[in-house]
Amino acid sequence: MGYANQWFQGGEEAAGLTLLEEGGVTSAAGFRAGGVHAGFRANPEKLDLALVVADEPCAAAAVFTQNVFCSPPVMVSRQHLAESGGVVRAVVVNSKVANAATGDEGMRRAQEMAAITAECVGCTEDEVLVASTGVIGVQLPLENFVTGVPAAMADLGSDDAAALRAARAIMTTDTQPKSCAVTFSGDGFGFPGEKFTVGGMAKGSGMIMPNMATMIAVLTTDAPVATPDLQAALRAAVAVSFNKVTVDSDTSTNDTCILLSSGAAPGGAQTGDFAEFTPGHAAFTAALSAVCSTLARAMAADGEGATRLVTVRVEGAATPEDADAAARTVANSPLVKTAIFGNDANWGRIAAALGRSGARFAKEGVNISIMGIPVCAGGMALDFDEDEALRRFEQPEIAIDIDLGSGECATTVWTCDLTHDYVTINGDYRT
Amino acid sequence: MGYANQWFQGGEEAAGLTLLEEGGVTSAAGFRAGGVHAGFRANPEKLDLALVVADEPCAAAAVFTQNVFCSPPVMVSRQHLAESGGVVRAVVVNSKVANAATGDEGMRRAQEMAAITAECVGCTEDEVLVASTGVIGVQLPLENFVTGVPAAMADLGSDDAAALRAARAIMTTDTQPKSCAVTFSGDGFGFPGEKFTVGGMAKGSGMIMPNMATMIAVLTTDAPVATPDLQAALRAAVAVSFNKVTVDSDTSTNDTCILLSSGAAPGGAQTGDFAEFTPGHAAFTAALSAVCSTLARAMAADGEGATRLVTVRVEGAATPEDADAAARTVANSPLVKTAIFGNDANWGRIAAALGRSGARFAKEGVNISIMGIPVCAGGMALDFDEDEALRRFEQPEIAIDIDLGSGECATTVWTCDLTHDYVTINGDYRT
Repeated sequence: MGYANQWFQGGEEAAGLTLLEEGGVTSAAGFRAGGVHAGFRANPEKLDLALVVADEPCAAAAVFTQNVFCSPPVMVSRQHLAESGGVVRAVVVNSKVANAATGDEGMRRAQEMAAITAECVGCTEDEVLVASTGVIGVQLPLENFVTGVPAAMADLGSDDAAALRAARAIMTTDTQPKSCAVTFSGDGFGFPGEKFTVGGMAKGSGMIMPNMATMIAVLTTDAPVATPDLQAALRAAVAVSFNKVTVDSDTSTNDTCILLSSGAAPGGAQTGDFAEFTPGHAAFTAALSAVCSTLARAMAADGEGATRLVTVRVEGAATPEDADAAARTVANSPLVKTAIFGNDANWGRIAAALGRSGARFAKEGVNISIMGIPVCAGGMALDFDEDEALRRFEQPEIAIDIDLGSGECATTVWTCDLTHDYVTINGDYRT
Repeated sequence: MGYANQWFQGGEEAAGLTLLEEGGVTSAAGFRAGGVHAGFRANPEKLDLALVVADEPCAAAAVFTQNVFCSPPVMVSRQHLAESGGVVRAVVVNSKVANAATGDEGMRRAQEMAAITAECVGCTEDEVLVASTGVIGVQLPLENFVTGVPAAMADLGSDDAAALRAARAIMTTDTQPKSCAVTFSGDGFGFPGEKFTVGGMAKGSGMIMPNMATMIAVLTTDAPVATPDLQAALRAAVAVSFNKVTVDSDTSTNDTCILLSSGAAPGGAQTGDFAEFTPGHAAFTAALSAVCSTLARAMAADGEGATRLVTVRVEGAATPEDADAAARTVANSPLVKTAIFGNDANWGRIAAALGRSGARFAKEGVNISIMGIPVCAGGMALDFDEDEALRRFEQPEIAIDIDLGSGECATTVWTCDLTHDYVTINGDYRT
């Protein structure tokens, strides 16, 4: 079973969805992928260039970082989507060098990265999207694409192993490749063929607090969804998945999430014939959200130095913004995160984080549970069994449930604990 | 020389000020202080109760935490200031137990803490201000005040040693007591007597990102400043000192900063005769800011697990809010803080933090220097001497200078690096 699949959430929202055992970016019909060592990394065993190619030009949607220091690859991908009208044949991603804060020369190299790929794939430059991840402020070595892209073309496959190679090639400090795919099969949605697949891959680990986008993620589907619907579905799915993850409150300069639709689902309409899809929108968004949430939770669980996934659920908020501010502030609190690392049900730190979050609530209405154990009611301490709490801290996922007692709005944010290894990894990244 | 004094900043703003070698909360005329072991801590060697007593009722100002989960001692002190019209005789502080999230019983105990102190000092209850710091969610053991306050009364002194005992008694995870005092002497300010002293003590270390207040700080002066002026001067000084410190972005439930004025400066007007002071306001605010900045910088330098003080200076911002958002986001970035721990001039992380800060600027106008070495100009990487950077990282204070190139506003925020010891201390605080 793929690493990310353990973070799949079943339940009502996953109705009609089947999680594929080893699925990924090639699970949907019409896509091939590959991953090779192109020389960005010193170690020849490490893959560092991923390529995803659609058999035919397909519909694309994307969301990108809101960071002012957005990188040349982000700017080039945005531009290509605009020029092509959202038609894409290939996505090329390198790790190790982010091509961020590299100025006009960085723009030229990002364009060249697309041009080299377009020539190998046999498409126009604006049909190629590019993404880079790694160190900021270093120019991209173009020679690695000259040899690496043809090698990745030769490596392309439509099987699970190919998807896994691509997922490995986009890793930086991730310890695990993150791939996931689901198949939808059901009635009543009006979808032509009533069966489609959504899959994808993502990398995360550090500098993670996506804002309207995520770290690098490439998603594919064979559902015949036209660009405007695709963009709407992607925004909706990202809002409840990647945008709810924070490892360290740092939003990257390169966050990129791309979704390609081949329309090649067996029995489905052909590419371009998207008009009939609209009634299937709900099923499609559910499938896309399931894949994105699984990858997002896997990103948090594999956050730099993390030993546990932490799920912060806030309900009873007055507005969605209050819910998000409360959950995000708790999830970003270094004191909460170190307490979890120390197996300490230190709810006072959760209360303090809520109190400074800017969310509006009265402290007398606040209830907090940790791993299902009520630790605070009406804003006051409860006696609880510390030994039982310690036992429950042995789980790989730590649940913090907060009721602000001030309304009907709720949200969930995912993070990880803050550990010695986070400090080691980031005290020593460039050298 | 007192620990905090090494963080005193001289220069133009300190004109007319003399830093006292071992000064503190008793340096101003009219104040005595003491610190004893009252039983809050298990170790009998650790002081845990501080008392500051004014010889006569004096003028008081205070700023408190904006955290919704503000603690009973904060509420009681606010109430007493309102009831007494800002007249105070004593401040009592305990460490180890914060008396936060303790509900009505916590309120009753905070009131009782004041009542016990009032009886020992011989003043009214509303002339006593209280502050507590330590673990959240635990009730305050009142018996410690019954024996501890009389012991602290017996311990009172007006010398530097007494000030140091008080500063030690308010420490939690601080490794150093933080005391500081300056004397102003000069002409032209119109101040009666033209000589006065401002001193104080503070505790910091963790859960530090003050918001309109600080951690526990008690400041005293013999300048004859009336309550409204005192409050204005305190707000101004706190805005550029304690409110510019962040250790870990976590704002405490108990932040309290109290300023007492005895008006007992030699040759100065007597208490109550405050009308003539106004022309001296500038000198007084400068002296107060110098003490607060020194204590604030000492708090950052002694942040939990810190090995270095980090000074983030932002200029060229469009508004003061943009300057603060930019500097604070850089200062709170775990990636920037771990890079400093690792002696890594990783300015890409600084750029990424600026880019997500919400401050408005164009990346093409950004210049960044680290320890005086230009590392980024016009938003792009500069070649720099990495060996020289490594040598400069050996200093106890790391300077990050950022020019956003978008306006005339500037600010400075102080923080520390993020280290293994921060994780160790906070993964293991309650147990």
